[in-house]
Amino acid sequence: MYRFKPDLRIPGPAPVPCGVSIQMSRQMINHRGEEFKKRFPRVLKRLQPLFGTKNTIYMLTGSGTSAMEAAVSNLVSEQTPTLCLVGGFFGKRWAELCLSYKANVHILNFPWNSGVDPNEVRAYLKQHPEIEIIFMVQNESSTAVLNDVKAVSEAREGHQALLVVDSVSALGGTPMEMDDWNVDVVVSASQKCLMTPPGTAFITFSPRAKEFVEKSESSRYYFDLRKCEEYLMKGETPFTPNINNVFALEEALDMIETEGLENVFSRHYLMRDMMRAGIKALDLELLVNDVDASPTVTGIKFKEADHLRLQIREHYGVEFAGGQGIYAGEIFRIGHMGYATPLDVLTSLAVLELEFKKFGEATKAAELVMNE
Amino acid sequence: MYRFKPDLRIPGPAPVPCGVSIQMSRQMINHRGEEFKKRFPRVLKRLQPLFGTKNTIYMLTGSGTSAMEAAVSNLVSEQTPTLCLVGGFFGKRWAELCLSYKANVHILNFPWNSGVDPNEVRAYLKQHPEIEIIFMVQNESSTAVLNDVKAVSEAREGHQALLVVDSVSALGGTPMEMDDWNVDVVVSASQKCLMTPPGTAFITFSPRAKEFVEKSESSRYYFDLRKCEEYLMKGETPFTPNINNVFALEEALDMIETEGLENVFSRHYLMRDMMRAGIKALDLELLVNDVDASPTVTGIKFKEADHLRLQIREHYGVEFAGGQGIYAGEIFRIGHMGYATPLDVLTSLAVLELEFKKFGEATKAAELVMNE
Repeated sequence: MYRFKPDLRIPGPAPVPCGVSIQMSRQMINHRGEEFKKRFPRVLKRLQPLFGTKNTIYMLTGSGTSAMEAAVSNLVSEQTPTLCLVGGFFGKRWAELCLSYKANVHILNFPWNSGVDPNEVRAYLKQHPEIEIIFMVQNESSTAVLNDVKAVSEAREGHQALLVVDSVSALGGTPMEMDDWNVDVVVSASQKCLMTPPGTAFITFSPRAKEFVEKSESSRYYFDLRKCEEYLMKGETPFTPNINNVFALEEALDMIETEGLENVFSRHYLMRDMMRAGIKALDLELLVNDVDASPTVTGIKFKEADHLRLQIREHYGVEFAGGQGIYAGEIFRIGHMGYATPLDVLTSLAVLELEFKKFGEATKAAELVMNE
Repeated sequence: MYRFKPDLRIPGPAPVPCGVSIQMSRQMINHRGEEFKKRFPRVLKRLQPLFGTKNTIYMLTGSGTSAMEAAVSNLVSEQTPTLCLVGGFFGKRWAELCLSYKANVHILNFPWNSGVDPNEVRAYLKQHPEIEIIFMVQNESSTAVLNDVKAVSEAREGHQALLVVDSVSALGGTPMEMDDWNVDVVVSASQKCLMTPPGTAFITFSPRAKEFVEKSESSRYYFDLRKCEEYLMKGETPFTPNINNVFALEEALDMIETEGLENVFSRHYLMRDMMRAGIKALDLELLVNDVDASPTVTGIKFKEADHLRLQIREHYGVEFAGGQGIYAGEIFRIGHMGYATPLDVLTSLAVLELEFKKFGEATKAAELVMNE
C-alpha cells in the first residue's frame, strides 16, 4: 500500500538524516591537505563524550567488524588466553575472531535471550587467573539484549584481564563510560546511533591496552594501531579515508550536541519502553525480559516471523529485520536507533497491529479449512 | 585568486561527477534486503570488462590497501617465498605487507623513475624457482610510472609463481587484461579512475589463486575471501557494506559504458601526452621518460616543489600532490584520472605557467639581492 515511502526499521544501517546525507555528496577534498587535517582530529575529539573517554579515538575505513578485528589483531597473539562472553551472534563473532588469531579461547555462553551474568564472569575469572583479555558486546543487536558493561568490568575485582567492548549498536544510543567503568578498548561504527552511512568504524584504547599493542605478534598492517597513531599526529589517516563520512559525522554530531546526549539517551529509553508496552498490548511475545532489554532494538518471537515481516514490507513499506544465528526465522527485530523518534515506534506498532490482525484471520481461516 | 573554485588535481581521491555524488545521498536501504541483493552482484559483474576478466570480483569496505592486505593474507603464510617488484611507494607497500605476514620476502628494486624491467624479473625467477607469488604495481602513482604487467607476466616463462597486481590507480584509466595476460590477482579501489568516493576496494582471484586461499594459514577474518564468496552467493557481503558507494558505482559505470571503455583509455592517453608536451614546453623536467609514463598522473621534478604547489593552490584553487618516499619535496604530481578531460590539463598547465613565471621572477629578484 505505502511501499513508495520506505521506512527502514532494522538494527542498522539506520536511516540517515537529510542534512547528514547531503554531506555525502560534497565535493572531494585532499585527505593529505590542510582542510582535512584541520577537520579530522576535531571530529574525533567530539566523539569522546559518546565513548565517555579522554583516550584518543581512531577512525578506520571499514565496517564495525573491521574495528573488532583491529582490537583482536592489536592485542592477541598466538595462544593468548582470552575469554569471550557469548550471548548472541556478535559475541560469537568475538570468539571466531580470537580463533582466527589462534588465541587460547575460553568461551562463557549465556542464554541468547538474556544478558551476560557478571557473577558467572567473576567465578570464571577466579578459576582462571591466566586470562589476559575479555571480549564482550554491549548491545547484542542480534537478540536485542543490553549487557551491563559496568557490572562485568567490576566483576574482574582486581583480575589482570583487559576488557574489550563491542559498542557498535549501542554507542550514541545508550551510555558508554569507558573511563569511569574502567573499560580498555571500545569499538563502534558509523551506521547505527551515529546516524551516518556505513563504511566507517571507530576504536579507542586505554593506556594499559596500548601496552598490549606493542607486544602483539599478530600479522597486521591495515589495522595496525601504531600506524593510525603515527598519522593522527599529522591529522591524517594512514590510508585514504572515506572523506565524505567525516563530513557526515560532523553534521550528525551537530545534531546530537544540539539535542544533548542525555536527551538522546532518554529518547532511546522512551522508544524502548513504548515498543515493549505496545508489543505486550498486541499479545505478542518479547524475546528479552525488561531488565536486559536493549534501548536501540527490540526482538519479538513469532512463529512465521519472516513471512510476517515480508508481508509488512510489501504492504506498508516498513522494513523489520529477521533473526540471526539460532533465532533465524524465529524472531523479528525492530530497530529504533539513531535518527528515530517515539513517533516511529507508533508507526511500527500500527503496521504490526494491522498485519497481525490480517495474519491472525488468515491463520484462523486456514485452521477452519483444515478442520473441515 | 580563484580559491573559491577548488580543482583537485591529485592522483586520488579524484573528483566525483555530480550525478555520482548525488547517489551518495540516497536513502539508506537494507544490505540484507531484496533490492541490495539484486543490485549488488549486477554492479560487480559490470566491473569485469575493466578488469579484463571473467573471474568473480569481490568488494571490500576499505581503502585500496585493504584489498592489498586481503591479497596477502589470503595467499601468504609464514615463510612463503614471495617476490616484490619495488619501484616506488606502493611497490614498497607490497613488501611491507609481505613482511607483516612473515613471508620470506625477496625484493627486486628498480629505479623510482622508470618501470619494472621484465628481463631482470626473468633472470631472478630463473635463479629462484621456489618463489610462489610475485607482487607488483601496475600504475605506481607515487612516481607516475606505468609498469608493463603483460611483459612481467610473460617473463615468468612457465615459472610457477602467481602474479598479483595492484591496479588501484590504473583500473578504468588504462587497460588491464587479467585473463589474457594471465594475471592471478588484481586489486583496485573506488576513488581513482572509477570516479566514486573513497571507501571501497575490489579484488579478484584466478582459479589457481583460489587454491592458495584454501592453503593460507594466515590469520584473517574481515579479509577472508571465503566469507566474501559465501555471502556473494546470496548477493550480499559478509559485513555491512558502504551501500551508497554501490549506488555511486552504478552511476559511474553508466558514464564509463556510455563513453565506451576504449574512448576512456584514449582520453587518458591524450591527457598524458598533452601534459607531457606542456611540461616540456614550460622547460620543466619530467620525472619519467615517455615509454614508462603513466596515463593517470604526471610527475615533475622541481627544486621547491612543495612551495610551488602550495602557492598554486593559494592563488588559483588548483591542488597538485607532493612527492612520496624518496621524492618527498623533490617532485610534484598532477593527477589526470577518471573524471578529467584534456581541458583540465590545459588548466593545470595554465596555472603552472602563471605561477612558474612569478616564481622564476622572485628567484631572479632574490638572486639579484644576494649578488648585491
